[in-house]
Amino acid sequence: MRQQSFTVVGGGPVGALLAILLGRYGYQVGLYEGRPDSRETSIYQGRSINIALSDRGWTSLKQIGISADARAEAIPMYDRAIHGIDGDLSEFPYGEEGKAIWSVSREGINQRLLDLADAEPNIETYFQHRLTDVDFATARAIFQVKDDHEISVEADYLFGADGANSKVRRLAHNFPRFSYSQTYMPQSYIELNIPANPDGSHRIEKNALHIWPRKDFMLIALPNPDGTFTCTLFLNHSGDPSFESLDERSKVQAFFEANFRDAMDYLEDPVHVFMEKTASPLFLVQVFPWSFNRKIGLIGDAAHAIVPFYGQGMNCGFEDCAELNRLIERHDHDWDEIFPAYENARKPNGDAIAELSKRNFVEMSDLSGDKMFQLRKMIEAKFSQRYPDLWTPLYSLVTFSPEVPYAEALRIGDEQNEVMTQIMALPNIEEDWDEQYVIDRLHELATATFGERH
Amino acid sequence: MRQQSFTVVGGGPVGALLAILLGRYGYQVGLYEGRPDSRETSIYQGRSINIALSDRGWTSLKQIGISADARAEAIPMYDRAIHGIDGDLSEFPYGEEGKAIWSVSREGINQRLLDLADAEPNIETYFQHRLTDVDFATARAIFQVKDDHEISVEADYLFGADGANSKVRRLAHNFPRFSYSQTYMPQSYIELNIPANPDGSHRIEKNALHIWPRKDFMLIALPNPDGTFTCTLFLNHSGDPSFESLDERSKVQAFFEANFRDAMDYLEDPVHVFMEKTASPLFLVQVFPWSFNRKIGLIGDAAHAIVPFYGQGMNCGFEDCAELNRLIERHDHDWDEIFPAYENARKPNGDAIAELSKRNFVEMSDLSGDKMFQLRKMIEAKFSQRYPDLWTPLYSLVTFSPEVPYAEALRIGDEQNEVMTQIMALPNIEEDWDEQYVIDRLHELATATFGERH
Repeated sequence: MRQQSFTVVGGGPVGALLAILLGRYGYQVGLYEGRPDSRETSIYQGRSINIALSDRGWTSLKQIGISADARAEAIPMYDRAIHGIDGDLSEFPYGEEGKAIWSVSREGINQRLLDLADAEPNIETYFQHRLTDVDFATARAIFQVKDDHEISVEADYLFGADGANSKVRRLAHNFPRFSYSQTYMPQSYIELNIPANPDGSHRIEKNALHIWPRKDFMLIALPNPDGTFTCTLFLNHSGDPSFESLDERSKVQAFFEANFRDAMDYLEDPVHVFMEKTASPLFLVQVFPWSFNRKIGLIGDAAHAIVPFYGQGMNCGFEDCAELNRLIERHDHDWDEIFPAYENARKPNGDAIAELSKRNFVEMSDLSGDKMFQLRKMIEAKFSQRYPDLWTPLYSLVTFSPEVPYAEALRIGDEQNEVMTQIMALPNIEEDWDEQYVIDRLHELATATFGERH
Repeated sequence: MRQQSFTVVGGGPVGALLAILLGRYGYQVGLYEGRPDSRETSIYQGRSINIALSDRGWTSLKQIGISADARAEAIPMYDRAIHGIDGDLSEFPYGEEGKAIWSVSREGINQRLLDLADAEPNIETYFQHRLTDVDFATARAIFQVKDDHEISVEADYLFGADGANSKVRRLAHNFPRFSYSQTYMPQSYIELNIPANPDGSHRIEKNALHIWPRKDFMLIALPNPDGTFTCTLFLNHSGDPSFESLDERSKVQAFFEANFRDAMDYLEDPVHVFMEKTASPLFLVQVFPWSFNRKIGLIGDAAHAIVPFYGQGMNCGFEDCAELNRLIERHDHDWDEIFPAYENARKPNGDAIAELSKRNFVEMSDLSGDKMFQLRKMIEAKFSQRYPDLWTPLYSLVTFSPEVPYAEALRIGDEQNEVMTQIMALPNIEEDWDEQYVIDRLHELATATFGERH
């Protein structure tokens, strides 16, 4: 059989990983990225956008055969560090002892994957190749090279791994019976920075994800290996307070002083940065199908852009790749079978993590500072430790249980929520939460709900 | 003050109505339609696509000052005529005595409105002007004239009234923070015809909307003034049976014989038409905002394409116009106020009728042939007659109660549904439905739910 070929549009982490897995199966792969090669332009110097990677991401990389040495540069975050408005700090573990989510540099992991792609003999990588058109019948793609001339690229198949603003997906809007939605969140965001100590150490707790929850808005901080933190301020686009309403230096200064008093000791020129930067919008994209004519596919954010509040965006994209990897084996390279199997397997999970990621804004920005909510989490954690087969908290299902698909985690989480609502309605729950009868009642309800399944 | 000007894109019923209302307020209006003028090409000969118009449509027309003489050509449909699979026929009134929905010709009402627009001195109508671009900052529009040259049209404001596939809306995809979704239903449809008797009379009951409910698919028929019926077959796009699976003459013949035995005596070459025609998809569009830069607006299907199962599409578009009419008065022609007030008032109602229209497929195709469902409707009708202030059935709220916004109708309908589920769970409801204790129990539940509000 003739060696089949793939065009992969988008040289981000998901596109690079997809290229590697296809290349290792012997396909001829062209990987095309619109931007310059960040390894040459040295945009990345160990301190850029960081993202959370967790068990789903690591498991998917491993399943595709990529060793976990990327983990050496990643920083484990064992706790949420909640900064109250008065500067008081409380820490809540993400899971059981030793469980962590990992702060990784997006550019760092991207460059590592691009290096691996370059090392494969049948992968060619091209930068400054911006996609302008795709023929959905033939998978022929047109790229504009360095804003200059256009080239035409033939291949048997094409994948759009070109991110939340995917051009491949936008071209698919004209495909018959293509359903799509793009929904803006009320919040936008800007990135801020906490510099390192003079000795290169971190100025606040390194092994935690820091949150300043303020209900309608919040600030978060993730550690970088060079001692800095990359912070993100999530704030409404309009209304009060908002990026729109905070239109003067003095208002911004007062806003930061009132809400992030303790962080003001660390943040690097937050008022200046706030005034200078344009806030980026947050939006979700949901589409179906994810494949066209058994020739063109969508993967990663191109298929399911979500919001960052569960730290699952890249994890989900890597899981897409791992699922494809499994299906290539199962269907013995028959892409007439692989494409529909892939989209049917992944679409419900993409929808589920979209829903979970939306909901988690409220959990991070509001509930994480709420006493009753913290109590609820403590009861759940205690119960889960005692009856691990009967109960895994939703956060752990999503973050530490790659064997449970997102859609299943969402379903279980909703059922647990109903049970916990009944527990929290017990008359003296605030005083009695640690009493045996609470655990007994929870066991009774949980067994009735989950007993036969677990 | 200088006379302000509007470009209205789309010369369908909603665009024409909008042009009239703006023109009558003294605005200079250019009404642009991509297709030829149907009044000259005589596509319409009293027998084309018909649609249901009901109280919301008539009320809106009246509120804008258009007399109800269009009603002379409309045919009242007092009942649903349900055709069972064995050919048995049962009729269920749409509302109280004398209440009807109206079968009108889309082209007929369109031409009447275009005539009225042409009669206004400050409205110019242009046909074969296809929109290619809009400048969202200036409201300047580019039209291609008769597939030939392009012209540029300046105006102070522009409305996209250009239907479910709105070009104005698609151009808005690039507008910052524009949320949009387009969702395909599993069903597609084709139109069939029942000819008139030789004497011009109708071959089946004229004053009814005929339904052949077959669960996953259905056939409906609406009467035309010339004695014919326009029928629509709604059937899944793929699966079994579907437009895809019925790919041979013999299969189509067998499908019609098995499912629409009685209709086969009337339908004009249904098998031939089925084989010849390409089925049209059904989709919903939801977007926000409906206005841009206080200069560009969306209205009718361009803002909220829905599915036809509640017969509310044109009614909803006419209501949009009536709302604008009110807001022009209230805000004294201040379009900086009118645009946001318009979209905030209408968006929740557009979303509600989208939801209601989706749900009604199940009600028409499945439940309308279901005995328990019919019983439920009878109990509701009886109770509503006795306690009209406490209970108006959902269908009547949507169809005969223009004073109740769609969003309110949806909310009340959901609450009524919960009450009726309890009533239908009474042990001997099938035998006892007409007993006083059922009405008493319903009164008790309804008072608890609605008592304080009504």
